[in-house]
Amino acid sequence: MSIGQQIIAACERLGRHSDDPDGLTVAYLSAAHCAVAAELKQAMVAAGLAVTVDAVGNVIGRLACGRPDAPTLLTGSHFDTVRNGGRFDGRLGIVLPIALARHLNESGERLPFDLEVAAFAEEEGLRFASTFLGSSPLVGQFDANVLECTDASGVRMRDAMKDAGLDPDGIAGLRRDPASLLGYYEVHIEQGPVLLHAGEALGVVTSIAGCVRHCCRVIGTAGHAGTVPMPLRHDAGTAAAEMVLAMEARCRADPSATVVGTAGRFEVVRGATNVIPGEAQFTIDLRAAEDGPRDRALADVLLSCQEIARRRGVSFASELTMKVPATPCTPAWVDALAAAVAGFGLPARRMPSGAGHDAMMMGRALPMAMLFVRCGNGGVSHSPAETMTAADAELAAAATLAFWRSLGAAAQDAPDRARE
Amino acid sequence: MSIGQQIIAACERLGRHSDDPDGLTVAYLSAAHCAVAAELKQAMVAAGLAVTVDAVGNVIGRLACGRPDAPTLLTGSHFDTVRNGGRFDGRLGIVLPIALARHLNESGERLPFDLEVAAFAEEEGLRFASTFLGSSPLVGQFDANVLECTDASGVRMRDAMKDAGLDPDGIAGLRRDPASLLGYYEVHIEQGPVLLHAGEALGVVTSIAGCVRHCCRVIGTAGHAGTVPMPLRHDAGTAAAEMVLAMEARCRADPSATVVGTAGRFEVVRGATNVIPGEAQFTIDLRAAEDGPRDRALADVLLSCQEIARRRGVSFASELTMKVPATPCTPAWVDALAAAVAGFGLPARRMPSGAGHDAMMMGRALPMAMLFVRCGNGGVSHSPAETMTAADAELAAAATLAFWRSLGAAAQDAPDRARE
Repeated sequence: MSIGQQIIAACERLGRHSDDPDGLTVAYLSAAHCAVAAELKQAMVAAGLAVTVDAVGNVIGRLACGRPDAPTLLTGSHFDTVRNGGRFDGRLGIVLPIALARHLNESGERLPFDLEVAAFAEEEGLRFASTFLGSSPLVGQFDANVLECTDASGVRMRDAMKDAGLDPDGIAGLRRDPASLLGYYEVHIEQGPVLLHAGEALGVVTSIAGCVRHCCRVIGTAGHAGTVPMPLRHDAGTAAAEMVLAMEARCRADPSATVVGTAGRFEVVRGATNVIPGEAQFTIDLRAAEDGPRDRALADVLLSCQEIARRRGVSFASELTMKVPATPCTPAWVDALAAAVAGFGLPARRMPSGAGHDAMMMGRALPMAMLFVRCGNGGVSHSPAETMTAADAELAAAATLAFWRSLGAAAQDAPDRARE
Repeated sequence: MSIGQQIIAACERLGRHSDDPDGLTVAYLSAAHCAVAAELKQAMVAAGLAVTVDAVGNVIGRLACGRPDAPTLLTGSHFDTVRNGGRFDGRLGIVLPIALARHLNESGERLPFDLEVAAFAEEEGLRFASTFLGSSPLVGQFDANVLECTDASGVRMRDAMKDAGLDPDGIAGLRRDPASLLGYYEVHIEQGPVLLHAGEALGVVTSIAGCVRHCCRVIGTAGHAGTVPMPLRHDAGTAAAEMVLAMEARCRADPSATVVGTAGRFEVVRGATNVIPGEAQFTIDLRAAEDGPRDRALADVLLSCQEIARRRGVSFASELTMKVPATPCTPAWVDALAAAVAGFGLPARRMPSGAGHDAMMMGRALPMAMLFVRCGNGGVSHSPAETMTAADAELAAAATLAFWRSLGAAAQDAPDRARE
């Protein structure tokens, strides 16, 4: 079985565990979650890794290179899912390096650095809204307040962790000394249609987009659908419709070509067929590879909304609900990863990641790179319909190994250069 | 107390009865409904009318002119309400002719026709979705199937009527011989802002708009709000937004200037902030004074929706949920009513009614005219915030009496002309 086939098979196997029998839902510390953790631990052991489960439930497999002063390359992703998610989202970034570690062990190849494969217990925040719970402690970004959060059944996160044999009070101690780490690398399915559309297998991430979100409320004048002539209306619904179209047009026209804007929620509040809408609400989600273009787009969109509201005689209010800065990948690593991909005759497309990933958290403290793998089936993700091919997984594994070797060469060259 | 003040006071008094203590809700055959019916009966008796309660619960007060072969002018409106409705909607058209009948009795004036004031028990259809229940039997438009409808508590209409001492099997017998009737006349609060905006007290209705409704569904492609570039999106939400704006623009530009179009419901289905909308639904409600302009507008709107769907790569489907033809008022009566209004030095604005009224039902079989009275408070209706002034009520009563006198003169002239 090729490495690509091993990777697909491993994701299929993990995908059999689910909190709901008909879907694919793995919430932090559920029975399915524990089963996936146990299976990952077993796979790591079988690949020759030394495995620990840390205080937050991350399963960490270590492949030492034998040099006592060697730095460590962290690589991994998360194994929890959204509600009814995909089999490759997160898990690909765990099983691919496990497969490579097995290959390194079997071939006897030793990289000039220690390798740690991190299977992060939680990134999606499905159960406790605690996104990046697994990766944040490693870079000192853990927020202890989340331990007091409760799930939909009223269970406190702290108690759920204790029941699972974890150590909530030990989480703060998981912080790694950045000086001991070479950096962080993550392989992830693209979760979008860009590579599929371009007919390319792999993409080199340049930046993880920041996100800004607003909740918007338009208040107009409700009225009888038959008795108010068009020129006398102050329709909150059509005003909001014009606003979301203004956002769409602004994002489409952005010169950076990386800005995306979404009105994921849009509703006429208490709407009735025969009543002119008196209130409408919608959400704005704006992202871009860099914060500058994103913030300029947001300012323009809010200005358009205000102008539309003024012209239509309705009121407009928006509330900031989230603002996360973009995390650029480390330029030298991006170049090295692109060279590794190009070494196989592949296009090495550079692209931003519109979705957040553990790499975003790790990149706040460490050198960081990320490889995207083509997402099949129209690019659908966060859905059981998410697919990828063994051939693409094989290419991703090969490019990853080439990238690691180049990192090793650079690490070995550096002292030589320092001595020159 | 002037007639205008009497009218306002009567509506205020009736408005104290409500099914919900804090609002104004009077559902067919509720305790509040029975109390309003009893109070109307009492007021009719006090005004010198001979009162009957018919099989459906309509309270009918008759003022005979003394000529055995005289035709009857029917006038009235409904006394049920929508949920949390207004004090003048419907009731104005009952208490105004009661006040005029009292005035005729007190002054000794006799019109050359019998007058019947009909307080229709049900028009809004709140409890059993049986709109025009009160008026439809009089013109042979009663649909006996509604007797088997149940309310939200599972009570059958037929049983509710029997419990209230009414005679469901007698409803079909309420049909009046059109030859015995002069026609139907209704005074109603405008329920819109047109007269208020124009600074005019009264409006002469030319036609009761027909209504056509569609439920529309747009299916696009759901996707991650961060990972799908703008040019690759098939966003059902922005597609639907463009469609409702196309409807708005088409109605605004209609040459007839009476077409109104409303998307009263608009929703991204299962929307989430970080998901590109995969499905959106909205409703279309189109009305016009005449069916031709309305139907041409609908055809254009649906064509625009299909064109937008094609251009955006989404699917569009619409389902007809209601189609009611417009009911024109009787031209000679419109002219006579306009002359009566103009006789008081008022502008006599001619305007369509965008809302349905008992006059729509009665106008299918009889000569019919309708007078609108200015709605205060921005034109809000179907709300406890609905208001009108005693001065406007006074003008409406005066114009009504003048109109009745002109009808009487025409009725008396007609035989003379026939003899010439």
